Amino acid sequence: MSEPEAEFDRDIALDETEPGSYAADLRPGWVVGDGVNGGYLLATLAHAVRRSAAHGDPLAISAHYLSTSRPGPATLETRCLREGRTLSTFAADLSQGGEPRITALATFGDLDVLPDDVETTAPEPDLPPRDRCFGIDQAPEDFRRTAPPLLHRYQLLFDPATIGWAVGKPSGRPLIQGWFRLNDDREPDPLALLLAVDALPPATFELGRPGWAPTLELTAHVRARPAPGWLRLRHETRNLAGGMFEEDCEVWDSVGRLVAQSRQLARQPRPIVTGDPPQPRG
Amino acid sequence: MSEPEAEFDRDIALDETEPGSYAADLRPGWVVGDGVNGGYLLATLAHAVRRSAAHGDPLAISAHYLSTSRPGPATLETRCLREGRTLSTFAADLSQGGEPRITALATFGDLDVLPDDVETTAPEPDLPPRDRCFGIDQAPEDFRRTAPPLLHRYQLLFDPATIGWAVGKPSGRPLIQGWFRLNDDREPDPLALLLAVDALPPATFELGRPGWAPTLELTAHVRARPAPGWLRLRHETRNLAGGMFEEDCEVWDSVGRLVAQSRQLARQPRPIVTGDPPQPRG
Repeated sequence: MSEPEAEFDRDIALDETEPGSYAADLRPGWVVGDGVNGGYLLATLAHAVRRSAAHGDPLAISAHYLSTSRPGPATLETRCLREGRTLSTFAADLSQGGEPRITALATFGDLDVLPDDVETTAPEPDLPPRDRCFGIDQAPEDFRRTAPPLLHRYQLLFDPATIGWAVGKPSGRPLIQGWFRLNDDREPDPLALLLAVDALPPATFELGRPGWAPTLELTAHVRARPAPGWLRLRHETRNLAGGMFEEDCEVWDSVGRLVAQSRQLARQPRPIVTGDPPQPRG
Repeated sequence: MSEPEAEFDRDIALDETEPGSYAADLRPGWVVGDGVNGGYLLATLAHAVRRSAAHGDPLAISAHYLSTSRPGPATLETRCLREGRTLSTFAADLSQGGEPRITALATFGDLDVLPDDVETTAPEPDLPPRDRCFGIDQAPEDFRRTAPPLLHRYQLLFDPATIGWAVGKPSGRPLIQGWFRLNDDREPDPLALLLAVDALPPATFELGRPGWAPTLELTAHVRARPAPGWLRLRHETRNLAGGMFEEDCEVWDSVGRLVAQSRQLARQPRPIVTGDPPQPRG
C-alpha cells in the first residue's frame, strides 16, 4: 500500500493484525487537554469498522469514552452484530496496553443509495465570509502559545461573533461556529465528518468557562456524503447542569446541506494544566 | 420479591438467569407500528444494567436497533466494560429466540452526587395547562380505533398547537409536545425517562407524514432525577433527508428542570398496516 497523501489519512491508518483486529498509532498532533481528541478517535474507530464491514459509510456511531487516550500504539477490535442487505452494525473497541479507552456501536450503510429527498428545517449557520472570520494565526500571542496541537491539524476560521472567549470577553451565549478544512486540503468524506463534529472548542468557552471538556459519550449521524470544499460547523449547548453539559454539532457542506449531526455529553471543563498526569475517568 | 404495583414496573421486570443475564417478557401493551416501542425496550435494557452495575442511574445510554422486537420472551445479557469510582460502563444486548434485537452501551453513575449547578439556556416547553390539552380520549373515533396499544400505557395530553395531524391538518412544523404521566400514577424516575423520550408520535406527523418510524439508533442522557408529578415532553426534527430523520426529545419535570435529552435516527414513517409480517431491518 502506498503512503496516503494527506495528514488525516496517514494518522488514521491501520494495520490489520488478524481478521477484524487492527493496530493504530495515535499521533501526538491530535492531543487536546490531557488526551487525544475524541473526534480523531471516533474517525479511527469508524475506519476500522469500514475495513471490516460490507457497507462503507458510518450512518450512526455511538462512542462511550472509558479512559483518556494517549499518543502511541492502540489496538482496535471490531465485531459484527448484524449484517443485513442495507445496513451493518458493529461493535468496536479501542484499547491501549490492555486498558479500554473507547467502546462504540456503529451502524454502517451506503449513503449513495439513500433516497434524495431533503426537507431540512434547521437553518444554515449564519457565518460571515471566510475573509471576515478569524483563524488561529490571528489569535493573540497568549492564545497561540498555549493552543493545543489539535488546532494545527485543520484550518478553523471562527465567526467573530462567537470568539469573545479568545480575548477574555465571552459572549455569554453558548455557541461557537466557524469554517473548517483539513490540512493538505484533504476533502471531506464521512470519516472526516466524524472528526469535524468534535473539532471546535467547547461551547462553554463562550460562557466564560475555559478548559477542554472530557467527553463521556458522543453519537454522530452522517446524513449525506459531503461535497468537496469547506465545511461549516455549529457547536452549541443548551443544558449545563450537574457538572456536565450536552453539546450539539451540526456540519454543513459547501452546497448547503446538513451532512452530519452529533451530540455529546461532556464533563464541565477543567482548566488546562500542561504536564498533568493522566486522569482516570471513573 | 413481591409483585411491583405499577404496570410499568411489572412490564420491565426481569429474572436473573445467571450473573449478568436476565429473562424478560416483552408485554403486548407496548406495541406500536409493527413492533415493540423502542423506549420500553431501552428502559428494560437499562433495568438489566442497573441490576448488574455498581451505579444505579443511567447517565448516557446509546442503543442501536437491529431487528423488530415482538411481544414475548426476551433474553438480556450485560457485560461490564469499565467500573470506576463514579461511573460504570456496560454493554447490554437484548435478543429473542437467538435473534439480536437491540445492542446498547450504557454509562451509569449516581445522579444524587452530581454538583447542583444548573445553567440551562434551553427554553421550557410552552404548554397550555393540562385542562386545555387533548388526550387520546378526546381524539376522533377513527384515531382512537386505530391507536396503537402503546398510547394506552400512559396519559399523554397534547398541546393543541401540535396536534393538527390527528384531525388531518398537520401544522407543517415538525414539533409535537405534551404532558406525560405513566399509568397507575407511577412517578417518574430515570428508567421512566428512558421510556418518555420515545413516547410521543414521530414529529413527522406534523409534516403530513403519518406512520410510525422505526428507530435505527437512540441515545438518551439523563441529567437529573425527576421530581414527582407530570413530565413535559418536546419532540422535534430538523433534518428529514435521505429517507431518515433525526428526532430530539426533551423531558422537563414538574419543577421546571430539563431532566433528559435524547436524539434518535429513524427511518421515515411507513404507513401503519395491521397484520403486516415482521420487517427485517437490513
